[in-house]
Amino acid sequence: MPTLPLPPGSTLGILGGGQLGRMLALAAARLGFDVAVLERDADSPAGRAAAHTIVGAYDDPAALEALAAVAKVVTFEFENVPSDSVLKLQALGVEVAPGPKALAVAQDRIAEKQFLNASGAPTVAFAAADTPEEAVAATAEMGAPVLMKTRREGYDGKGQRWVEHAADAAAAFAELGSVPVILEAPADFVRELSIIAVRGRDGATAIYPLAENHHEGGILRRSVAPAQVSEDLAFQAEKIAARVLKGLGYVGVVGIELFELKDGQLLVNEIAPRVHNTGHWTQDGCAVDQFEQHIRAVAGWPLGPTTPHARVEMLNLLGDEAHAWSKLAHEPETRVHLYGKREAKPGRKMGHVNKLKGL
Amino acid sequence: MPTLPLPPGSTLGILGGGQLGRMLALAAARLGFDVAVLERDADSPAGRAAAHTIVGAYDDPAALEALAAVAKVVTFEFENVPSDSVLKLQALGVEVAPGPKALAVAQDRIAEKQFLNASGAPTVAFAAADTPEEAVAATAEMGAPVLMKTRREGYDGKGQRWVEHAADAAAAFAELGSVPVILEAPADFVRELSIIAVRGRDGATAIYPLAENHHEGGILRRSVAPAQVSEDLAFQAEKIAARVLKGLGYVGVVGIELFELKDGQLLVNEIAPRVHNTGHWTQDGCAVDQFEQHIRAVAGWPLGPTTPHARVEMLNLLGDEAHAWSKLAHEPETRVHLYGKREAKPGRKMGHVNKLKGL
Repeated sequence: MPTLPLPPGSTLGILGGGQLGRMLALAAARLGFDVAVLERDADSPAGRAAAHTIVGAYDDPAALEALAAVAKVVTFEFENVPSDSVLKLQALGVEVAPGPKALAVAQDRIAEKQFLNASGAPTVAFAAADTPEEAVAATAEMGAPVLMKTRREGYDGKGQRWVEHAADAAAAFAELGSVPVILEAPADFVRELSIIAVRGRDGATAIYPLAENHHEGGILRRSVAPAQVSEDLAFQAEKIAARVLKGLGYVGVVGIELFELKDGQLLVNEIAPRVHNTGHWTQDGCAVDQFEQHIRAVAGWPLGPTTPHARVEMLNLLGDEAHAWSKLAHEPETRVHLYGKREAKPGRKMGHVNKLKGL
Repeated sequence: MPTLPLPPGSTLGILGGGQLGRMLALAAARLGFDVAVLERDADSPAGRAAAHTIVGAYDDPAALEALAAVAKVVTFEFENVPSDSVLKLQALGVEVAPGPKALAVAQDRIAEKQFLNASGAPTVAFAAADTPEEAVAATAEMGAPVLMKTRREGYDGKGQRWVEHAADAAAAFAELGSVPVILEAPADFVRELSIIAVRGRDGATAIYPLAENHHEGGILRRSVAPAQVSEDLAFQAEKIAARVLKGLGYVGVVGIELFELKDGQLLVNEIAPRVHNTGHWTQDGCAVDQFEQHIRAVAGWPLGPTTPHARVEMLNLLGDEAHAWSKLAHEPETRVHLYGKREAKPGRKMGHVNKLKGL
């Protein structure tokens, strides 16, 4: 029997035990799947909503073998999945989606920007630097200020520094751990937008309306969707999404963060090969949300519709903010989503609310 | 610290591992709860979507103690919970909802009809019979045909017989196992309706719009909601729901099955002290569905809104019908819900679809 489409009753694997894994697990369960979570922590938000938790590091061969023994289709909740783990799972006959190309591009900020530009998706100007000397020279050539980021890892504003003068680039390079970096020209944007798109195993695509996003300290605070945008802007964004999906031979949901410039042009900030925080609004704004779309795509099912039935303001609940659950639950237009995390550390994403408005 | 309202991160217990338990577990997880399922089968639909499965009979003291050790609030997916189990859990300091009165009424068809009539909620005429002789005499007095049902147990049309002549009542009594029965006068109904209502720990109530239901062989095939009804009918139904909720001092979601008579009067057929198959439409027709409402109520949270944003046709997938999942998943207006049951036995509820229509 072919693995795909994966029939209900089968077990679907998820690498990662956080909130995205949990919401993927809930969506998978609605469709009749069992879920196996591979996660280092035996007590994880996703594991507690799944049929199985396999405890181990993401690159632990025994854990990967245990996962492959129960799940013939595997996906992940985070982009830093070791590529060797994907190869190992594939060698064990597992269908992994999104695929290695998407991971390779998403894990390396230089490869990402090169891919985007080659695909006709514009980005800010950038340069690579592997040494402090290269960092200083590149900053001088681009002209400060530049945003220095580690080429790999880093999220929610971690692993990056603004460099105001070329002479400071060496110190910033050291502060970031003396690892290869990317230097990015500042984007003079008027608004941050994002688009959540999905591609099925058969190449079919579906694209949700744009979300408008507001960050604080590098962390998403708030998304409003569908964003109020011109037809031209929506068309630009959809074209970018289509190019990214096709260029990566992508399967699953991708989140694409965009800068809207003063002149109405869109630049791609980054792509996340997974369900995305700026797509949480779809849970209460659309009949089929990003989590179910992702499960449908990786399981080889047909995609669902992406038409919204409500405008949604999504607010992240960070740290202590989740303690307001009772007040929030009293608000009739507010849908509460909590992740079951044990500790409300400052800045930690503990949950979110979707506030429903008329379309 | 008081048990209620139950804070997110707590464990909530569910007696029963079927599809209703599974959908309750998914709703609880969205609100940040862990779920512990008590179920005889170690491999159950609800257990596979929950943090813990406690394996045991519903009246197994050790299993109930294990449940009470992790869950301070417990609910159930079926009405035939042994009353001693509820008392045992309460003695262990557990808040159980819905409460013993609702269970007592729902478990005994005579007590149910007596309660309903005493509350001002009309039913068909009925009589009790504990012996074949009483069954014959009561049938003669009521006038055949009558519908004979066991006083306890029985669902989806099981445990009932039509008695066409008083003389046949003794044989029917024997066929049903020579247990106490109820005899019900036929309801000359034009339509079967149901109403899903919920009451919080604080006495607040919320009521969904009526559903119109179609049964085949005693099993629900199809619900359409909101049903097209006159204002007067909606008002009658809401009055009945309010009386039932208040009369039982109820906490949680109740499903009330109704007969609409030719003259526009509503009779109560039966009440189910739990989430109900005719309320599945709320999953895709309302911002807060019956499962989340039930969890909110039993956890002592405020209730959510019951306003629909779509008209929904709900179709049960019985037995083999669930094999059409791929075709159904291709329909853009169809939301697929599958229960993860291992075997598609004939007539078994394997899943349902909600077909979305404009309001």
